[in-house]
Amino acid sequence: MTGDPKYDVLFEPVRIGPKQAPNRFFQVPHCNGAGSHRPGAQAAFRAMKAEGGWGVVCVEYCAISPETDDTPHISVRIWDEGDVINLRHTTESVHRHGALAGIQLWYGGAHAPVRETLAISRGPSQMPSETAYQNYCHECDEDDIRELIQMYVDAARRSEDAGFDYVEVIGSDSSLPTQFLQPMYNKRTDRWGGSFENRARFWLETMAALKRAVGDRVAVGTRIAIDNLLGPMGLELEEGLKFVELVTREGVCDLWNIKISYFMEWGNDAGPSRFFEPGYQTWATKAVKEVANVPVVGVGRVTSPDDMVRIIRAGEADLIGAARPSIADPFLPRKIREGRSDDIRECIGCNICVSQFNMEAPLVCTQNATAMEEYRRGWHPERFDQAAEPCSVLVVGAGPAGMECARVLGERGYDVHLRERESEIGGHIRQVMRYPGLTEWGRIISYRQAQLDKLKSVEVHTGVDDMTADSVLSYGADKVVIAVGAEWVMDGLNAVSFGPIEGADAETPQFCTPEQVMGGKDIGDRVVILDGDGYFTGVAMAEMMAERGKQVSVVTQFNEVAPFCQNTLEGPNLQRLLHEQDIQCYPLHWIESLAVNNTVKVEIAYAYRDSPRIELPPRTGRVPRRLGTDTTTLECDTVILCTARKSRRELFTALKARKDEWPQNDVQAVYQVGDCHTPRFIQLSVFEGHRLGREFESDNPQFPLPYIREQHTWGNETY
Amino acid sequence: MTGDPKYDVLFEPVRIGPKQAPNRFFQVPHCNGAGSHRPGAQAAFRAMKAEGGWGVVCVEYCAISPETDDTPHISVRIWDEGDVINLRHTTESVHRHGALAGIQLWYGGAHAPVRETLAISRGPSQMPSETAYQNYCHECDEDDIRELIQMYVDAARRSEDAGFDYVEVIGSDSSLPTQFLQPMYNKRTDRWGGSFENRARFWLETMAALKRAVGDRVAVGTRIAIDNLLGPMGLELEEGLKFVELVTREGVCDLWNIKISYFMEWGNDAGPSRFFEPGYQTWATKAVKEVANVPVVGVGRVTSPDDMVRIIRAGEADLIGAARPSIADPFLPRKIREGRSDDIRECIGCNICVSQFNMEAPLVCTQNATAMEEYRRGWHPERFDQAAEPCSVLVVGAGPAGMECARVLGERGYDVHLRERESEIGGHIRQVMRYPGLTEWGRIISYRQAQLDKLKSVEVHTGVDDMTADSVLSYGADKVVIAVGAEWVMDGLNAVSFGPIEGADAETPQFCTPEQVMGGKDIGDRVVILDGDGYFTGVAMAEMMAERGKQVSVVTQFNEVAPFCQNTLEGPNLQRLLHEQDIQCYPLHWIESLAVNNTVKVEIAYAYRDSPRIELPPRTGRVPRRLGTDTTTLECDTVILCTARKSRRELFTALKARKDEWPQNDVQAVYQVGDCHTPRFIQLSVFEGHRLGREFESDNPQFPLPYIREQHTWGNETY
Repeated sequence: MTGDPKYDVLFEPVRIGPKQAPNRFFQVPHCNGAGSHRPGAQAAFRAMKAEGGWGVVCVEYCAISPETDDTPHISVRIWDEGDVINLRHTTESVHRHGALAGIQLWYGGAHAPVRETLAISRGPSQMPSETAYQNYCHECDEDDIRELIQMYVDAARRSEDAGFDYVEVIGSDSSLPTQFLQPMYNKRTDRWGGSFENRARFWLETMAALKRAVGDRVAVGTRIAIDNLLGPMGLELEEGLKFVELVTREGVCDLWNIKISYFMEWGNDAGPSRFFEPGYQTWATKAVKEVANVPVVGVGRVTSPDDMVRIIRAGEADLIGAARPSIADPFLPRKIREGRSDDIRECIGCNICVSQFNMEAPLVCTQNATAMEEYRRGWHPERFDQAAEPCSVLVVGAGPAGMECARVLGERGYDVHLRERESEIGGHIRQVMRYPGLTEWGRIISYRQAQLDKLKSVEVHTGVDDMTADSVLSYGADKVVIAVGAEWVMDGLNAVSFGPIEGADAETPQFCTPEQVMGGKDIGDRVVILDGDGYFTGVAMAEMMAERGKQVSVVTQFNEVAPFCQNTLEGPNLQRLLHEQDIQCYPLHWIESLAVNNTVKVEIAYAYRDSPRIELPPRTGRVPRRLGTDTTTLECDTVILCTARKSRRELFTALKARKDEWPQNDVQAVYQVGDCHTPRFIQLSVFEGHRLGREFESDNPQFPLPYIREQHTWGNETY
Repeated sequence: MTGDPKYDVLFEPVRIGPKQAPNRFFQVPHCNGAGSHRPGAQAAFRAMKAEGGWGVVCVEYCAISPETDDTPHISVRIWDEGDVINLRHTTESVHRHGALAGIQLWYGGAHAPVRETLAISRGPSQMPSETAYQNYCHECDEDDIRELIQMYVDAARRSEDAGFDYVEVIGSDSSLPTQFLQPMYNKRTDRWGGSFENRARFWLETMAALKRAVGDRVAVGTRIAIDNLLGPMGLELEEGLKFVELVTREGVCDLWNIKISYFMEWGNDAGPSRFFEPGYQTWATKAVKEVANVPVVGVGRVTSPDDMVRIIRAGEADLIGAARPSIADPFLPRKIREGRSDDIRECIGCNICVSQFNMEAPLVCTQNATAMEEYRRGWHPERFDQAAEPCSVLVVGAGPAGMECARVLGERGYDVHLRERESEIGGHIRQVMRYPGLTEWGRIISYRQAQLDKLKSVEVHTGVDDMTADSVLSYGADKVVIAVGAEWVMDGLNAVSFGPIEGADAETPQFCTPEQVMGGKDIGDRVVILDGDGYFTGVAMAEMMAERGKQVSVVTQFNEVAPFCQNTLEGPNLQRLLHEQDIQCYPLHWIESLAVNNTVKVEIAYAYRDSPRIELPPRTGRVPRRLGTDTTTLECDTVILCTARKSRRELFTALKARKDEWPQNDVQAVYQVGDCHTPRFIQLSVFEGHRLGREFESDNPQFPLPYIREQHTWGNETY
């Protein structure tokens, strides 16, 4: 199978300094949680992208010295021979598929928290970091500056030794080069500060030093946030382009990797689909292309081959940079090449991948359950072990877990019936994708719909009667997977009072669950949203209500509304949105009592207000006393309850209670998967559906098999 | 040297099931960031305590299964043979010094974030976790409960295999046994829920199973939060004791490890000195001792041997449990035994150790710079390599870094002059210890004062003239260490606007720095505190002002006042304190403008209000627009500026500029250390002073030598 010739332009080789990229697909540096301490995971993850057709594959940002330790965040490091050994395994794995391997040299200055090394990072001027409490850099003198440039050179040499083809200096994300370039960080009055030329000197000299040291053998590029969106205080496009011109004149850069945004709000670069449409950065890359004379990489969550062709043809970029689209589908380029664009598993822009970085854990992906499982569990996104003895499997429920499980079982040759009571598959995603800004999340369904349609061994039945223990047992399947999901509680059950809320009842007109809201239940003019969940649902309800012209308040026990959205980089713009829409927020508050009539009087109290412990006996010290009963009353017409979800457990429980009847019905096993087992993040339901399908023949697939941990054991050589 | 016989009671052996502890010093399980993946660091850290005389030394909480993965937090794990190998190295290291080695078996249920394993944790009832967003456990059926108990048994067997003498089931900290015991988590209606006996069944059966499995060879105990301070909603002392009675009747527990508090506020257990005096938990342990018939361990930051004796004599505990005091001084027991109690390096209760756990990094300690450096840098808290060729060293400035550096150099045989312009040593700690609640922080000074007094090779000169480049060069020292500290900026320099604040000037009556406040500068009745720092200073100023009867507001760019104090567990009580004292807080706000007359009009704006990027050109999507200019004006008499600190760099800069004069003055080297080099957390200044002293003969001791990273390298056997 070969692709449409209109996409051929994407597969043209591109010269990058002394190297040649085989095509225009460039996986920009992005984190995955493997760093250089899980070399197997790192290599397998990157190699999968090379196998999938990405012409250049980079590891994530790489700390060039213990001075720039980003602990607790997980970065690659290139400090010693141990790191080189580990990274060499990645480059060799990437090269095996014909791609170039890249590395991004990072020095954080004041922004390096150095919590493992306890070393001291250096920077142009002594300023507290805005990203890390009480973190200051040491203000460089001339000796320091020379040493810093040498550190980049040493790291580049080690990178070459490790087999990298492309070395990138990261200047974006408020890293050291930008700290020198931007007056907001650089207050120097010597030849390294003040005028544009002086502020640009550090970056320029670093690039020149790298070119001298390795440039005839290794491509040398840099990443710049060409406009950090801070206005005159920061770096604006005009000055960014001036810098590109300067570097171009000096001829010390083989490639420009372009982004926008400021480090503290990098959600304006790794833009979530809630706020940004694909390709939202092309104005920036286009501007750079107009002044640069080397290839330019642009990003912007582009997943459509037609968009990619348009970008190249319009001269907006030379290489299609991608982080998230390459996570969601490592085989994106190859699928285009092979004329299978409709098989692309498109990124939904939820930024769950980023949230794991922010929580110091390995990457996960809502769309691609095999991400970061390539090595530790041996999963390949496009290859599935065929079942030795495929049996028939009934999957009840076609939400994220059921769809994915049916897909994987189908790929593996099982004879699958996927049965869904709704008229379409998708489960609760069908509602979620209608939340403001979350349209792209519908790709969770559309990708799986398309795949299921192609799988001959899977039948999808929609609009069927609710399945019961009887109908399951008599269905005739050898094995059964229950995936009937969860629903929001009707009674306000929550993790603040550890029980329901007295007076709350979504059977009555004054209370609503999110499902009822989406189902069209009447809602009054004044709405209180009770958000005990902290992720996208409560805030989505608030935004929808505001859009309908309601007067909206949100009460939450967390210290802000939707705190989890800070992890997905949706936070700052969401906070602005709440503010812009005049949504009244009551963080650190929770329901004290409800008085329900035609309207609801919601009495709320400060979450830290008091606790009975204050009155406990023998206690010394100065613990604050009981704080009284200062409460606030909100009068409203409707309360929307986003307090907790509850698994639909009845079907599995009923089946398990009749386990003795399984043999006579030739039912060998019944498993549960997804929210009906345990309500979790969407990507974890997808993961669990996938895992069950992969491990379907294990002794007890309800529970995961062990994976390779890549843990150093005592007695082995280490660095 | 032998100790006072009055302390002999502390050195009596204590029978614990089949084992005997050599004395009453019990290092309770606490985290250090090594887990089971840095076996060298883990073993050396624990062995140091055994060497220092702790009779029982435990590793931290240990995840018994991938189902209870606490990623991103770092725990010990005992999942496979790799973990056993690594932990065996710890038990062997601990045994070498005659101590017992303990392990704490942990299963987190809904509270296990499982961000690495992606497995699903189980619990009594399906409830969202109050500690982790969207984390729910799977509600157990009877099979699950049997499997969970078996998991504990398997983990105990592996622990025995790894050489542990004592296995503890953690029930405190809202872990699984407590989730079964407490109705707030347990909503079951079967024989595992409802009545006290039903709720206690899981914990009791687990203990019984462990006793059966390993109890004749390994001591089996449990840790309980005997009152979790939540009142009727949680576990109160009365029911806690009822549980102790039940277990005692069944005879399935060899030791009770007692604490108080609720997981979400474990700062009421690991009580910071700001709020809790030493021994604040003895009422709880005493109550347990009255019903238990096996040894009882109590904690409460006890560092005084006299307090310890009193606790034992009063029957308040059988063993002196300690986490923090054993970190600050691993040799605490031995120093008592040897009659050197005045050498004890007492814990200051700052909880910086805990903050590192909360930030997923290795433990550090303000008092003990060698903590967690035993293996990776080879440091011993009580032993110092003698300098081969000791020279004379002038240390200028006796703050945390200068004191520590002088002490270490003195221990190493250098001829040290420590010179301080103030009348006493201590630097800014002399002010900080006068902040509300921080008296114990004065131990940073008192410990070092006592040690310096004993060191014959160190002369301390206080009240001397400010040293200049001239006086340093002519002083006659071979080497010089500058440690003159930092000070709060006078002009409001901050990391929000990246510059000073127009109109702010602490030379004028309306503005104050924290130093000026402590120095007695006049302050008006209405005070605005500008906290750009986020740790203890701004909030201390607020509390002091409130105590003086002022009307107080705090403006901060963070989402709460003193957010870093959440990491040190001071957060919840600090928030209550602010509330109780009617201190008006403006989180997520910053100064827009100042109008200074006799009073100051402080115009503040929402931190997320807008940014110029909103007006940038081609942009798609739904990013919120500019939000207008809604500001709030606070009128006040005095503004206290806690925005940033600035190093005192002048002396070093002047000396470096005259480097060519060093040889003629026989000055071989000049180093800077502590806040004058870079303003940092106190413990990092102490660390840096210590490190410089340890590495004083390296090629360039200004920069740290590499340490052992214990990183797995590709190609080595791993698990």
